[in-house]
Amino acid sequence: MTVPPLANQTDLPREFAFIRRHFAALAGPAALDLRDDAAVFTPPPGLQLVLATDAMVENVHFLPDDPPQTVGRKLLRCNLSDLAAMGAKPEGWLLTFARPPHITEDWVAQFCAGLKADQDLYGLSLMGGDTTSTSGPLVLSLTIMGSVAPGQAVQRRGAQVGDGLWVTGTIGDGALGLKMLQGQLEDGSGHLAQRYRLPEPRLGLDLYGLATCAMDVSDGLVQDTGHLARENGLAAVIDAAKVPLSPAARQAGPDWLRTCLTGGDDYELLMAVPPAQEDRLASKGYLESPYGRVPVTRIGHFHAGTPGVQVRDENGQALHIETGGWSHL
Amino acid sequence: MTVPPLANQTDLPREFAFIRRHFAALAGPAALDLRDDAAVFTPPPGLQLVLATDAMVENVHFLPDDPPQTVGRKLLRCNLSDLAAMGAKPEGWLLTFARPPHITEDWVAQFCAGLKADQDLYGLSLMGGDTTSTSGPLVLSLTIMGSVAPGQAVQRRGAQVGDGLWVTGTIGDGALGLKMLQGQLEDGSGHLAQRYRLPEPRLGLDLYGLATCAMDVSDGLVQDTGHLARENGLAAVIDAAKVPLSPAARQAGPDWLRTCLTGGDDYELLMAVPPAQEDRLASKGYLESPYGRVPVTRIGHFHAGTPGVQVRDENGQALHIETGGWSHL
Repeated sequence: MTVPPLANQTDLPREFAFIRRHFAALAGPAALDLRDDAAVFTPPPGLQLVLATDAMVENVHFLPDDPPQTVGRKLLRCNLSDLAAMGAKPEGWLLTFARPPHITEDWVAQFCAGLKADQDLYGLSLMGGDTTSTSGPLVLSLTIMGSVAPGQAVQRRGAQVGDGLWVTGTIGDGALGLKMLQGQLEDGSGHLAQRYRLPEPRLGLDLYGLATCAMDVSDGLVQDTGHLARENGLAAVIDAAKVPLSPAARQAGPDWLRTCLTGGDDYELLMAVPPAQEDRLASKGYLESPYGRVPVTRIGHFHAGTPGVQVRDENGQALHIETGGWSHL
Repeated sequence: MTVPPLANQTDLPREFAFIRRHFAALAGPAALDLRDDAAVFTPPPGLQLVLATDAMVENVHFLPDDPPQTVGRKLLRCNLSDLAAMGAKPEGWLLTFARPPHITEDWVAQFCAGLKADQDLYGLSLMGGDTTSTSGPLVLSLTIMGSVAPGQAVQRRGAQVGDGLWVTGTIGDGALGLKMLQGQLEDGSGHLAQRYRLPEPRLGLDLYGLATCAMDVSDGLVQDTGHLARENGLAAVIDAAKVPLSPAARQAGPDWLRTCLTGGDDYELLMAVPPAQEDRLASKGYLESPYGRVPVTRIGHFHAGTPGVQVRDENGQALHIETGGWSHL
């Protein structure tokens, strides 16, 4: 009996060929070569797992002409930043990819090359995913998993009256980078655009025992400090003059200070540090990480009062900040 | 010093209010009240974790006038089906929600009510998520986590020459249900539409030690059997007359058989079962699950040959099946 081959018998369906072509190189041991219904992951014995998920939408979180390499890396790094805020170590990630017709093969190849570079840099691998078509903008959704010693995940709650408010790195570069890319600001150094497109997740800092609570600054320093204050039932004060700015942000001038304080895309860590730990931190001025020294700066403190945030100028006068940052809805 | 309140100081930003209003009731212990950067999950000691992710796009996977309750439940159930195929127990899930302006508050409330009903039914809870806006169709992406005893996840590879090909439940109802909803088919019983909208994930079956490999049928019986055959380097035969059909599918008549064999959305399990296990299975005709008895049927077998699938009629003659099923790209 001669059996005619089915149309799909010899060739892989398009979706499978697409996955093999672009994503197979990213697959780690849990992924089962991306050929199975699901990934199988052996959790590190005795640890807790930390999980976060973030979506990015074309025209909302990135622009159609952004380099595809940085789109993938930014998505991964935003999720890594959530792990960093908890003091967790990256383990793996999953991706869904809702692809409109205008996203070319070359775009996807570059997107994946960026992800490959970053997963090697940060020590994790792809565990699984799903691809589908859409008539709308490109929608990317990434779920990340990390691990942490039991009870040592640093959460948003835990700050006490009198704790200092500390931040890593510099604030405002990402927001100014977007303005620069939109043609509203000059930056010959390229630093601001780089920081907008490729935030640095502050992984590997020894937060547990140092910070009573932490979060990453993604929606703007003032808004995110407000979250931290509300979560802890405390009032927070930010001394605007102490907020660390990069040379490129200083170069932009004082007119852009409010953008720095309220814009999103910093992906620095915001921490409450008790007085007993502050002297040590202040005298060093940095924290060690596997990716180098990360500067830390005291920008304010928590006190008893109506939960919320107040921003003060160098004379201790309240600055009225109109916009509270970025809302995704 | 009187400090003017910030615009966002007293009220929650819209995104946070949206999450509290709709998703807080779904949050389990790992979710930290959905107030933190990430979830913290303590994996069950000594078990492996199973992870899968699936996206659904409006107009691709569901229709704008589908009941929002079933949209959420179907998304969760498709992911649960991936766990079921591996013999894993559900633990938790994460969701990203890219919301276009036409998705109303009432739609979201019903969507979440459906998810609440199903997460209670299947014994898992929400661990985290992300909401964003989009100008395009609604895009939902769900990541699911389950657990399994070490080495007992049933994968797609493992079938041997001579293994029988078995399937749970009935095949084709989902595909016929879609045809019914599109007005191409009558079904007074409502069974077909129900199966399209609310597949039953075959959780809790004791697959390990019974099946040498398994997968869920989501893209059509013939195409998915082809995957299983290729993954195992074997030829698979499906005896079309043995494929179990529901009374409603039989009622539709023989013209619809090819739709049943090649349509998607079954979410039944396809298994290779070695001869030593087949007698026991055949004499019982079902497997026990916490959700009731699940019928199982032998529909074919694996043999040595060119990897792929052949479908035969009741006389052993090859049926030429033109369409291989559903590709998502």
